[in-house]
Amino acid sequence: MPDALPPDRLLADLISLLGPAGVLTDSADIAPALSDWRSLYQGKALAVLRPASTEQVAECVRLCAAAGIAIVPQGGNTSMVGGATPTEDGRSVVLSLARMNRIRDLDPVDMTMTAEAGVVLKTAQDAAAECGCLFPLSLGAEGTATIGGVLSTNAGGNTTVRYGNARELMLGLEVVLPDGQVWNGLRRLRKDNTGYALRHLFVGAEGTLGIVTAATLRLFARPRANEVLFCSVRDEDAALAVFRRFREADETAIRAFEYMSGTGVEFAVKHIPGVTLPLAERADHYILVDLASTRADADLQGLAEQVLGAAMEEGEVLDAVIGGNEAKRAAIWRIREEHPEAQRKEGASVKNDVSVPVSKVPELIRRASAACIALIPGTRPVPFGHLGDGNIHMNLEQPVDMDGAAFLARSHDIMDTVNEVVRDLDGSFSAEHGIGRLKTDMMEVWRGGAELDAMKRIKAALDPSGLMNPGKVLP
Amino acid sequence: MPDALPPDRLLADLISLLGPAGVLTDSADIAPALSDWRSLYQGKALAVLRPASTEQVAECVRLCAAAGIAIVPQGGNTSMVGGATPTEDGRSVVLSLARMNRIRDLDPVDMTMTAEAGVVLKTAQDAAAECGCLFPLSLGAEGTATIGGVLSTNAGGNTTVRYGNARELMLGLEVVLPDGQVWNGLRRLRKDNTGYALRHLFVGAEGTLGIVTAATLRLFARPRANEVLFCSVRDEDAALAVFRRFREADETAIRAFEYMSGTGVEFAVKHIPGVTLPLAERADHYILVDLASTRADADLQGLAEQVLGAAMEEGEVLDAVIGGNEAKRAAIWRIREEHPEAQRKEGASVKNDVSVPVSKVPELIRRASAACIALIPGTRPVPFGHLGDGNIHMNLEQPVDMDGAAFLARSHDIMDTVNEVVRDLDGSFSAEHGIGRLKTDMMEVWRGGAELDAMKRIKAALDPSGLMNPGKVLP
Repeated sequence: MPDALPPDRLLADLISLLGPAGVLTDSADIAPALSDWRSLYQGKALAVLRPASTEQVAECVRLCAAAGIAIVPQGGNTSMVGGATPTEDGRSVVLSLARMNRIRDLDPVDMTMTAEAGVVLKTAQDAAAECGCLFPLSLGAEGTATIGGVLSTNAGGNTTVRYGNARELMLGLEVVLPDGQVWNGLRRLRKDNTGYALRHLFVGAEGTLGIVTAATLRLFARPRANEVLFCSVRDEDAALAVFRRFREADETAIRAFEYMSGTGVEFAVKHIPGVTLPLAERADHYILVDLASTRADADLQGLAEQVLGAAMEEGEVLDAVIGGNEAKRAAIWRIREEHPEAQRKEGASVKNDVSVPVSKVPELIRRASAACIALIPGTRPVPFGHLGDGNIHMNLEQPVDMDGAAFLARSHDIMDTVNEVVRDLDGSFSAEHGIGRLKTDMMEVWRGGAELDAMKRIKAALDPSGLMNPGKVLP
Repeated sequence: MPDALPPDRLLADLISLLGPAGVLTDSADIAPALSDWRSLYQGKALAVLRPASTEQVAECVRLCAAAGIAIVPQGGNTSMVGGATPTEDGRSVVLSLARMNRIRDLDPVDMTMTAEAGVVLKTAQDAAAECGCLFPLSLGAEGTATIGGVLSTNAGGNTTVRYGNARELMLGLEVVLPDGQVWNGLRRLRKDNTGYALRHLFVGAEGTLGIVTAATLRLFARPRANEVLFCSVRDEDAALAVFRRFREADETAIRAFEYMSGTGVEFAVKHIPGVTLPLAERADHYILVDLASTRADADLQGLAEQVLGAAMEEGEVLDAVIGGNEAKRAAIWRIREEHPEAQRKEGASVKNDVSVPVSKVPELIRRASAACIALIPGTRPVPFGHLGDGNIHMNLEQPVDMDGAAFLARSHDIMDTVNEVVRDLDGSFSAEHGIGRLKTDMMEVWRGGAELDAMKRIKAALDPSGLMNPGKVLP
């Protein structure tokens, strides 16, 4: 860009737009924004911008475009794949949406909420609850992750089996396009067939096509009945069989259906104070079933007993406990939620966020576990996650007697080994975490040909200068 | 296109590809494909192509691209807006997907079906039912409309309130791109965050970005309990209030929630043999509520009685009947389903497929009715449709003493009058029927600026020669 604005001039313009507090350049101030929380990447940036309004975001985009400086949008910076970390060349700014944190509208008749990109997911959940509604997206980072981030990455989480991913919870978007135009697509409509579904293009694009500044989200009626079960099951097939039984009995009651390995549960009990096994005997496979209904008289306990009775008769379920009260339900969920922390405490582990058709989850777990043990004997598979939607976190813990760093040095071999099985089962190498920087080099192999070609055409059409979050998603 | 293949050479190549039976050129044979069923448009075409495989579709696209001849994809040809009708210049072929009518796969464990574009919607519904599953998309034209068509137009229908539009029922697509490449995106995954959501771009694009040749669809558990209610209600606000009561009581049980005006019901009773009013007294406003559950012991009748009891106490519901058996449920549904036919028999009518936020449905009905009566005194408003998703067919029947043709000559004035109200209520001028040819000239006003600009960039990026269904969607 020969006639681009020099960076000093750009920063001066940005400071005059956002004020000194809106443009962080001090290295200590901007350090947290330059690396991801997993410390996979360490980037550089001219500044961290903190616009407070959509118009300010648009003006930042126009100024940076004129200067040929790239923009890395950042929400809660909780990406698992380095999606919000700048590259190392220092030719970019981080644009934080943190100050755009207003809930603009919440309508319990329409069952919609319009929230700015910087609203923290937990805040959105709480605001919905205060109006007697439910915003069902729920995931580990919900206390930090933002609405802009969960939409830009199409986050999933525990309740996808019932409510869908972030995409399905979105009715409309407001987006600042790469040329600085503001697209106000904040519609509250369930039906609107008026041209191409632009809003779906920005969801999951990880900020590479524009900056999501606000979204209109779907709300749901709050459940009045809830029950949580924890069961030991015979094997992976039995876990799937029990899922099918619940789906057949009451499809809409399943709010979450999670699988855990015996090893993973053992780690949680061993490392996390207060986590205990609520069953008399250990097993190799467990499931957690969360049932919910808006109907107060739904008798979820009766439903659970009926399904579990039949499943026990067939030998699928070995033992089971029904929460029965709030404290016990929370205790059951904790076993599952502490899996990542327990794995961290046990040693080095390699994470694989993969998905397969639901029918192939048992085969995925068995084959990927065996293949990884064959690759590095002593490796301890700790698969867990969302059986109900086919998304298993096919994690591998280091062998007891191996050096953690030596195990992590084999990360790519392990991921390749898992992905070979996933590919054979018509699965995906990134289920809910996205591509970011971590997986861009896999796009050619998995999505190459007509699909990647079309994605690149779209990127070039909307962001011809390639200034929106460069180095992410597309190889 | 100076060096384009002459049409005769193209037809010879197409015949050698598809055989004589695959290339219709006789004017009597192709006539039905050249106009829409509402007879809004009469187009011309060189031929009607009937490929039998994805590879044949791709080869047709490559040959036509080389010849500079446009392609109009056609499924059941049931578009309400001329979306599948060729333009008048004769520089195109119609490509019928009718021979691509195989269900390639149906998996009751994954709850997915992979169907070719030419499979009739009713056939897909039946195939799902035979495997104990439900494919919930349901609309008037389901005996003729095809999977490719309902996806390309993002069809809605009666069950959107519970299951979503066609878009939400789609997991993967196979598409022949404008350059003849085949994109196989037939994934059976609930989570797959690997780049831009191409599949969502083709849904609702009405064949202007490529030709959908097959789709992987979501199936659901079949309801074991069902109940249908018909109620007279005090006014439009009461209709909305009853919807809110049901949503609060059991959100997932509402399979359809339909509004009908007193005039519309009167027309159905008057013109359709066998249709009767199941209540003792006439009213100005009615609702139909369809409740369903996979749970056999769901006690929908109890749910209905509880909600109706409270609504009657508040004066919202005047009178109500609960179907109680299959025949009576079907009879109630017929009152609603015969609305279009009854309106046709009563005289000339102007159709408006519009949507607003659910909370604004009462205001839409009242204001649009009053505005149309003010425009043409004696006009009889017959609004009906999907209150639960905000999509009302805001139809207007001619005054009794007016000439039908004279009334229809005012169609555009009437549509403008309705749309002015819709716009004021943050609604959409096309809820579930799409844009086609009928509404392209409204795109600039409603979607102009950043949004239409982005759509045009995407169109140019994927179909630079503009040969895919020209004259549709984009102005």
